[in-house]
Amino acid sequence: MELTVYLAGQIHDDWREQVKAKAKEKSLPVTFVSPQTNHERSDNVGEDILGEQPDKTVKDDAASDINNFRTEVLMQKSDAVIALFGESYKQWNTAMDTSTAISMNKPTIIIRPESLVHPLKELSNKANVTVENIDQALDVLAYIYE
Amino acid sequence: MELTVYLAGQIHDDWREQVKAKAKEKSLPVTFVSPQTNHERSDNVGEDILGEQPDKTVKDDAASDINNFRTEVLMQKSDAVIALFGESYKQWNTAMDTSTAISMNKPTIIIRPESLVHPLKELSNKANVTVENIDQALDVLAYIYE
Amino acid sequence: MELTVYLAGQIHDDWREQVKAKAKEKSLPVTFVSPQTNHERSDNVGEDILGEQPDKTVKDDAASDINNFRTEVLMQKSDAVIALFGESYKQWNTAMDTSTAISMNKPTIIIRPESLVHPLKELSNKANVTVENIDQALDVLAYIYE
Amino acid sequence: MELTVYLAGQIHDDWREQVKAKAKEKSLPVTFVSPQTNHERSDNVGEDILGEQPDKTVKDDAASDINNFRTEVLMQKSDAVIALFGESYKQWNTAMDTSTAISMNKPTIIIRPESLVHPLKELSNKANVTVENIDQALDVLAYIYE
Amino acid sequence: MELTVYLAGQIHDDWREQVKAKAKEKSLPVTFVSPQTNHERSDNVGEDILGEQPDKTVKDDAASDINNFRTEVLMQKSDAVIALFGESYKQWNTAMDTSTAISMNKPTIIIRPESLVHPLKELSNKANVTVENIDQALDVLAYIYE
Amino acid sequence: MELTVYLAGQIHDDWREQVKAKAKEKSLPVTFVSPQTNHERSDNVGEDILGEQPDKTVKDDAASDINNFRTEVLMQKSDAVIALFGESYKQWNTAMDTSTAISMNKPTIIIRPESLVHPLKELSNKANVTVENIDQALDVLAYIYE
Amino acid sequence: MELTVYLAGQIHDDWREQVKAKAKEKSLPVTFVSPQTNHERSDNVGEDILGEQPDKTVKDDAASDINNFRTEVLMQKSDAVIALFGESYKQWNTAMDTSTAISMNKPTIIIRPESLVHPLKELSNKANVTVENIDQALDVLAYIYE
Amino acid sequence: MELTVYLAGQIHDDWREQVKAKAKEKSLPVTFVSPQTNHERSDNVGEDILGEQPDKTVKDDAASDINNFRTEVLMQKSDAVIALFGESYKQWNTAMDTSTAISMNKPTIIIRPESLVHPLKELSNKANVTVENIDQALDVLAYIYE
Repeated sequence: MELTVYLAGQIHDDWREQVKAKAKEKSLPVTFVSPQTNHERSDNVGEDILGEQPDKTVKDDAASDINNFRTEVLMQKSDAVIALFGESYKQWNTAMDTSTAISMNKPTIIIRPESLVHPLKELSNKANVTVENIDQALDVLAYIYE
Repeated sequence: MELTVYLAGQIHDDWREQVKAKAKEKSLPVTFVSPQTNHERSDNVGEDILGEQPDKTVKDDAASDINNFRTEVLMQKSDAVIALFGESYKQWNTAMDTSTAISMNKPTIIIRPESLVHPLKELSNKANVTVENIDQALDVLAYIYE
Repeated sequence: MELTVYLAGQIHDDWREQVKAKAKEKSLPVTFVSPQTNHERSDNVGEDILGEQPDKTVKDDAASDINNFRTEVLMQKSDAVIALFGESYKQWNTAMDTSTAISMNKPTIIIRPESLVHPLKELSNKANVTVENIDQALDVLAYIYE
Repeated sequence: MELTVYLAGQIHDDWREQVKAKAKEKSLPVTFVSPQTNHERSDNVGEDILGEQPDKTVKDDAASDINNFRTEVLMQKSDAVIALFGESYKQWNTAMDTSTAISMNKPTIIIRPESLVHPLKELSNKANVTVENIDQALDVLAYIYE
Repeated sequence: MELTVYLAGQIHDDWREQVKAKAKEKSLPVTFVSPQTNHERSDNVGEDILGEQPDKTVKDDAASDINNFRTEVLMQKSDAVIALFGESYKQWNTAMDTSTAISMNKPTIIIRPESLVHPLKELSNKANVTVENIDQALDVLAYIYE
Repeated sequence: MELTVYLAGQIHDDWREQVKAKAKEKSLPVTFVSPQTNHERSDNVGEDILGEQPDKTVKDDAASDINNFRTEVLMQKSDAVIALFGESYKQWNTAMDTSTAISMNKPTIIIRPESLVHPLKELSNKANVTVENIDQALDVLAYIYE
Repeated sequence: MELTVYLAGQIHDDWREQVKAKAKEKSLPVTFVSPQTNHERSDNVGEDILGEQPDKTVKDDAASDINNFRTEVLMQKSDAVIALFGESYKQWNTAMDTSTAISMNKPTIIIRPESLVHPLKELSNKANVTVENIDQALDVLAYIYE
Repeated sequence: MELTVYLAGQIHDDWREQVKAKAKEKSLPVTFVSPQTNHERSDNVGEDILGEQPDKTVKDDAASDINNFRTEVLMQKSDAVIALFGESYKQWNTAMDTSTAISMNKPTIIIRPESLVHPLKELSNKANVTVENIDQALDVLAYIYE
C-alpha cells in the first residue's frame, strides 16, 4: 500500500532529507511532500510572481497566499502528516499545519524535543503520536507495514 | 505527483490552450479539464440532446442541466481550480464555479485584470491566490512542484 | 417555526425593506439578515477600522476581509437564502453568496428579471427556485407556513 | 441575533475582560467563552482531578486532556472566534485553536501586534480578518450588527 | 427535550392529524412538520406563484422547485422523520424523502402495511425502525421520553 | 479521464447491456457497475448465504442487508449515477438509490418515459438531468468528454 | 451556557442518578439524557411495540431498531458524552456509543476502573478524558464552567 | 474493480489468513489490511519505539497512540470492513473499530457466533450485514463481483 506523507515543520535544516533517506533504508513505499523548504523563496514568492508589493505586510500576505495554496493542495493528497518542532523560532506554521491536519482527520505524528513537552502539551494531546526524534517517527510509519 | 486542475471562466478566446501550452513547456504533470468551450454547443446542448423545448427559458434550463452535470463530475475529480475573469460579459458562471470550488475546499487561483480588482474584491479575498495573467497562474501551479 | 433568511444581492435600492414589509404583512415569523447595505460603509470599512491602507487594492482587500466575516457569520445562522439580481452592476458578490449558500445546502430562492434568464441559467438551475419579483419570493417563503 | 464568541489566546493578562467591557459599552448581544484563564489551574487540572501523575510529561498530558475537552465543547457552541497573539510566549495553543476554528468554518478574527506580521503571515492569511488591537476586533464584531 | 419530526408520505388522507392527536394524548413535546398536504395546491403551486407555464412538464417542474424548497427547509429543522407508505400511488416522493432523511442522518421510522414488506425491503433495511401502523410509530417516539 | 458510473434501476430487462454497448460504440472510458441484476438471486441472497430464515419478512431483510452492502460499496466508488425508471413495478429501490446518490453529491441522470413526468417530478427536479431514453443518457455522458 | 450530556454505559445500577445528583449539588446547568435504563424494557421493546417475533434473534433485532433510534436522536442533541464502563458484562453498547460519539466529534469522557486500563486502552486513547469515578467526571464537566 | 478491506477483530488466531486464502480461491481482487496481529508487539510497541514508560498505564497509552495511528491510516484507505467477534476476551477494540467504520460510512460485515447474538444486537443492527462464519463473509464479499 503506497502512502503519501506531508512533512510539516521548520525549514532551517535538512531534516526532511533525513526522513527520506531513512524511509528508503527501510524500503517504505512512501512519497513525502512538504512546504517550500527554501526559506528565501518562501518569503519572496509573492513578489517573485506578482511583482513588487506596496509594503512589507502586503508582500508577506502575497507570499502567504501562494504558500497556503501549495500546502492545501499537498496536504489534501496526503494520507498522514509528520510535523517536526525544533527549539528555535516561533513555528506557528508548524502548529497551524498540525492543527489543520488533525481537523482534516489526517493521522498525525509530532516530533519534538523533551524541552517542548510543556508548551506543546495540548497539541500533542490531539495528535495521534508524539515522538522525540526522526528515527522514532520512521518506526511509527514502518509499523503500518508490519 | 499528478494533479488535475479545472479551468473555470469565459469561453470566448483560447486562454485554456495557452494554459496547457505553458504547462507543457514547464513539464508540469497536470491534466486540465474545463466546461464545454464551444459556446454554441454549450447554449444548445439541451435541445441537441432532448429535442426542441417549449420556449427559450426552458431551452436554457435544459442546457444548464447538462452543463452543470458536466461541471460537477469534472470539478469533483479536480485537485485545484484556476478561474479566469475577463473585462466583458457577466461571467456569473465563473463566479459560481469559483465559489463552489472554494466551498468544496478546492485550492483556487483567480486570474483577473487590474480593472476588476474592486468588483471582485470579496471573491478574490476568499480564493487562495489572485493573479493578473496566465503566466502568473502557471508560476503558482509550478511552485507546488519546486 | 421561526426562520432566519439571508438576503443576498445588490445594495443600491431598498428592496430588503420591501421584503421585510411584505413579510410583516403576511405575519411570517421570519428574521431577515443581510450584508452591509450602506455602500460607502461597505467599501470603506477596512480603512474605517484598520486605518489608511497603502493602495486601493489593499484597501479593497481589507474591506473584503470584514465583509466576508460578516456574511459568513450571518449565513451560517440562516435557514434559507433569497438572492436578488438586478439589471445593473456586475453583482459578483450576489453570484458568490448564492453559490456559497447552495454549496452549504441552504435552500435558496433567486429573484431576477426576465432579461437575465440566459446569463444566470446555470446558477438558476442549481438554486431551488427562481422567481421574477419580490412578491413571488415572499409567496414561496409563505408556502412553508401553509 | 445573539452570538457566542470564543476568545482564544494567551492567559497572562486581562485582555478578555477588556473585550467583555467594550462589548458591553457597545451593547452587543454577544456571550464570550474562553479557555481556563487561571494559568496555574490550567497547568494542574490533570493532577487536581485525577491525582498525582507519575512524571511531568504525564501530568501535562492529563491537564491537556481536560483543557482540550473544555475547548472542544465551547468552540463547538461558538459562532465566531477572536484569537489574540502577544509578543511573549510560544502561544502554540493560540495557533492551534485558531487553525482548528478555521478548519471548523468558524469565522475568525486574529489580533496581533505589528511585530508579529511576518511570523503569523500564513495563519493571518487563512483567518477572515487580522487586526492590531482589541478595539478594532470589537469594531469588526459590531459591524455584524450595523 | 423538545423535538421536531417531519411527517413524510402520502397526502390522500388525514394520517398526519391522527399522528398529532395521538402525540397530544401522550403529551409528547413534539412539533410535527410536513409537506404541503393540499394535493391540488401542491400540484399547482408553480403556476399559482409564477404564472402560466408553457406546458405540463414545465408546470410540474415549477411546482417541484417550490415543494422541494419547502421540504428542504423543514427537514433540516427536524430531529427525526416518520414516513408513511400506503397501498396506492407510486409514492416516489415518500421514498425520496425517506432516503434523503437517512442520508442526512435523521433518525427515521417507516410505517407500511404488511403487503409492502417485499417491495420496500431495502429502504426498510436502511431506516432505523419499520412499523405497521401509526400507533406503533407513536410508541417508538414516546420511547425516547421514557 | 476514466469514470465509474452506477446504473440504478429496474432489473427486468437488459437495459444495462444496451448502455454498455452504446458506451463502447462511443469509445467512452467508463466502467459501469450495478446492483445484482439476477432478480431471483437478489431476492434469495440472504437465505443463499445465511441459510433458511424464520419467515418471509426476515428472509427479505437478510437479502436487503446484502444488497444494500453491495450498493453502498459500488456507489461510493462511482463518479456519477444513471437511474432508469420504467412504467411497471414500484421501483422504490430506484427512487432510494437516486435520492441517496443525490444526497452524496453524485452527479445523477434520470431516464424515465414521458408518462412518468408527473409522479417523478420532485425527484427529477433534484437530479442533474432527466432524459427519456438510453441514447440521450449516453449523449449526456459523452458530453463530459467533448 | 446550558449543555446536554448523553450518559452512555451499563444499565445495571443507578450510576446515572448519582451523576444527576452531583451535578445538581454543583449547580451545573446540564441536562442529562441516556439510553433506556430499564433492562427488561430495553430487551423487550421490539416485541412490546411490534408484537411477537418469529425467534429470539429477530426479537433482539426489533429491540435494537428502537434502541438505536432512541440513542441516535438523543446523541445528536447532546453537546458531550460521558461513558461508564464497569467490571462486568460485555458492554459492547458502551464501546459502540463511545466510538460513535468520538466519530461525531462529541467531546467524550470515559469512566472506568483501574482494572480496565489495559483492555480499554485504544478507546481511552481516542476519548478526550478518562477518569476512574463519577466524581472525577463531574469535576471535568464542572471545569467547563470555571 | 479492486477493493481494500480492513479486517477488524481479535488477534488470537489466524482467522485473517483464512479470509485471505478463501478470497484467493475465489479470485477476488481484494487487498486485506489489518491491525498489528502480533499481540505482544501490539502491547509493547509504545515502549519498543519510545523507550521505557513510567508505569503500565502510560505504557498502554503509548502503545495505543501508535496502534490507533496505524488503524486510522489503514481504515481510511479501505472500501469496506469485516469485523470478527469471538467468544473470548472483551474485544472492545473490535467494537470500537466496527462503530468507527460505520460512522465513517464504510460498508461493514460482522462475523459473530450465535452465542453473541444478544450482546451484539445493537451493533449488529447498525452494521450492513451480520454472518456467523468466515465463509459467509466471503460469500457477501464475492456477491459484489457477481
